[in-house]
Amino acid sequence: MLAITTAWQSTDNSTELRRVTIERRELRDDDLAVRVDYCGVCHSDLHAIHGLVGKATKGLVPGHEFTGTVTDIGPAVTGFAPGDRVAVGTVVDSCGKCAMCRVGQENYCLEGPVTTYGGKDRVDGTTTQGGYSREYIVRSSFAYPLPEGLDPAAAAPLLCAGITVWEPLRAAGVGQGSTVAVAGLGGVGHLGVKFAVALGAEVTVLSRTPDKAADARALGATELVDTTDEAQLAAAAGRFDFILDTISAPHDLAPLLDLLALDGTLSVVGAPLPTQVPLMLLTRGRRKLTSSGTGGRRGTAEMLAFAAERGIVADIERVPSTQVSEALDRLERNEVRYRFVLDLADLEEAPGSAD
Amino acid sequence: MLAITTAWQSTDNSTELRRVTIERRELRDDDLAVRVDYCGVCHSDLHAIHGLVGKATKGLVPGHEFTGTVTDIGPAVTGFAPGDRVAVGTVVDSCGKCAMCRVGQENYCLEGPVTTYGGKDRVDGTTTQGGYSREYIVRSSFAYPLPEGLDPAAAAPLLCAGITVWEPLRAAGVGQGSTVAVAGLGGVGHLGVKFAVALGAEVTVLSRTPDKAADARALGATELVDTTDEAQLAAAAGRFDFILDTISAPHDLAPLLDLLALDGTLSVVGAPLPTQVPLMLLTRGRRKLTSSGTGGRRGTAEMLAFAAERGIVADIERVPSTQVSEALDRLERNEVRYRFVLDLADLEEAPGSAD
Repeated sequence: MLAITTAWQSTDNSTELRRVTIERRELRDDDLAVRVDYCGVCHSDLHAIHGLVGKATKGLVPGHEFTGTVTDIGPAVTGFAPGDRVAVGTVVDSCGKCAMCRVGQENYCLEGPVTTYGGKDRVDGTTTQGGYSREYIVRSSFAYPLPEGLDPAAAAPLLCAGITVWEPLRAAGVGQGSTVAVAGLGGVGHLGVKFAVALGAEVTVLSRTPDKAADARALGATELVDTTDEAQLAAAAGRFDFILDTISAPHDLAPLLDLLALDGTLSVVGAPLPTQVPLMLLTRGRRKLTSSGTGGRRGTAEMLAFAAERGIVADIERVPSTQVSEALDRLERNEVRYRFVLDLADLEEAPGSAD
Repeated sequence: MLAITTAWQSTDNSTELRRVTIERRELRDDDLAVRVDYCGVCHSDLHAIHGLVGKATKGLVPGHEFTGTVTDIGPAVTGFAPGDRVAVGTVVDSCGKCAMCRVGQENYCLEGPVTTYGGKDRVDGTTTQGGYSREYIVRSSFAYPLPEGLDPAAAAPLLCAGITVWEPLRAAGVGQGSTVAVAGLGGVGHLGVKFAVALGAEVTVLSRTPDKAADARALGATELVDTTDEAQLAAAAGRFDFILDTISAPHDLAPLLDLLALDGTLSVVGAPLPTQVPLMLLTRGRRKLTSSGTGGRRGTAEMLAFAAERGIVADIERVPSTQVSEALDRLERNEVRYRFVLDLADLEEAPGSAD
């Protein structure tokens, strides 16, 4: 039995999304049916809509950071019951057997992770459709119980933006005594500041927008360095052990590399990534350049537990899903502090059956 | 009083070096005069001769890894006396005050290190001339006592090739339990294998020359992976925590990156460096890319002490300095296992005085 649900779809590379009905797959033995309550609007949704990442843009339903409520479970599912609050991120399936899957890094699955939208289902080969939708069917091992105490709307962005900053911060061993900079104070960056501060680091924000200095401090940063000010950049040269680069627009990495201390690491997580990097820039001071893409099941579960313990959620602007196009346009102009979250309650709640 | 000495000089970007007399500076208060006994022939000497690195190639005297004997000392020198064996590497002066110099990384001096040849002297602005020469005048703080028990000829390459591998291995924390690959089994690479093995790592050699498998094992590596063999590369995918890339010719980094384990590091130390790297290659598996350039005083002293303790020197082919052009040509064709060292005894021993 295929279920029909309502979704916001992009068909022409524009942010004018249309309300459509789409089919969701029949519930498999280990699937959950989830009523999507809140879905974050990620910069990569914009990139996907514009055809900058991923393949198909025909009939694209974006959305890969959402929270919702379990409405049905397959017969083999354990650990979830109807009514449970759950969260779903950027990966909804993987081979489960390769070296990456075995260490909980399904996001790097050697057979390729199945992404939440625009991915290829491992069972039937269909293209996945994302969380800008009222219902989602997900393999239960890729749904996470939403911890008590986290607001379901403000927690939704943790599933992409949050894990995107959590994994590199943890991989770099950021903690007490670390000197960290976060470049870009947007949806991803503001969570980078929150998590790095909570991990015990001294955090500086690097931004072209000095107006955000008060916000940066409110998030826990000690200061904001204006990257358009040569004097401020020069004063910060060689200062940071770790720089988390969350800037989503194309930009030069050289000025950021110059801010690294000896053996420091620049982790570039904004997408799409700058395509070419002059290696010579890494030699002086043994600077390390790295990148990462969201996270796996293990890290996501750890991140959610840490977020619940420390009360970390995104600073969001919650909008009815009917305003999705406006939200995308404002995101494109960086007019949000710091993440739009769509409230999907305005989509019809009781999809009919196609069978 | 300027001293005159004999040297091998390149004037036309060719490896046809000419025997010339050059002036060395007057001994300063903290200078040593060193009779150069042995000087290694480094791939970057070739690059400098061909004008691929550095600036001036008119009147270039290469050579930046040499051992010799102190013949005179300035009045302020302590810790050295005539007759002492010393070693000199790639850096002969630095500001001594910046953040890099303060932590013993004079090679990254923020005012620019003074290189052993082709550098600009900090006192008189003259261009430094290297160790393919019978005498060198060096600031005493950039000469290292040659530890007892190290053969002066075979130890000479430690001062560039040795420190070039030592510093990245140490920065990466390579030791017991590390899984290391060394790409390229030349002058630099063979010392990479020796040092990594001595530090306790399990070491694999990556090479286009499967003939070197027996040599690789003799150096302490467990195996050689033939990088021209797709099946061998596929079998080694994701295996290494750390890859030391010592290949001096232009090459693609992608196949090496694919051999890294999760959070693994590729350290590129062959020069000239590939100029551009696609950042996308770093995302999968949070791979880190880094580079480094020789080392500072602290690391060099530590490396020499470790080499003496473990009996590590280069495997060399010792040739009279009159064969320098042939040595350079053979090096260019990779016809040396693994390092040429010039014996400078065939240059006149008693330079006249220019004053």
